[in-house]
Amino acid sequence: MHVIIAYDIGIERLRKVYVIMKQYLSWIQNSAFEGDLTKAQLEELRVRISEVIDAASDSVVVFTIPNPEWIERTVWGKERGQSESII
Amino acid sequence: MHVIIAYDIGIERLRKVYVIMKQYLSWIQNSAFEGDLTKAQLEELRVRISEVIDAASDSVVVFTIPNPEWIERTVWGKERGQSESII
Repeated sequence: MHVIIAYDIGIERLRKVYVIMKQYLSWIQNSAFEGDLTKAQLEELRVRISEVIDAASDSVVVFTIPNPEWIERTVWGKERGQSESII
Repeated sequence: MHVIIAYDIGIERLRKVYVIMKQYLSWIQNSAFEGDLTKAQLEELRVRISEVIDAASDSVVVFTIPNPEWIERTVWGKERGQSESII
């Protein structure tokens, strides 16, 4: 399934969350990732992220779409590259 | 159609972009919005945002899904409210 994740995390945990996300998904920009995962991979990602975030203050919004062909992606302005730095 | 938007905008233009987005979509968090728009509304939003952003440095990624029922939304950690302040 296709997964889009946007998060709002305390700055002291941002790097850890970024490093884990990067192992499963492609970085879009600005604390947002996307990619195709199986249910098992998404559950693994959820467990790993849950170990790192502060559930009382951090928030991770996860959108899942069963078929990647159902989603269309457009960019207004500049397309971000994978190699750019974050934050 | 359902729309998810994540943007990475120069800080001096953030407020303007936020104010326009808020007229069309619901704020998720951290420079991300979502909501249901018609094609005409999305085009109107694109035009208004294009007038404000610097296309050489700012980036707005737009995901559209024809049927809102095709998308599932989950939150890990804290659910963000609509009334919270940004940046």
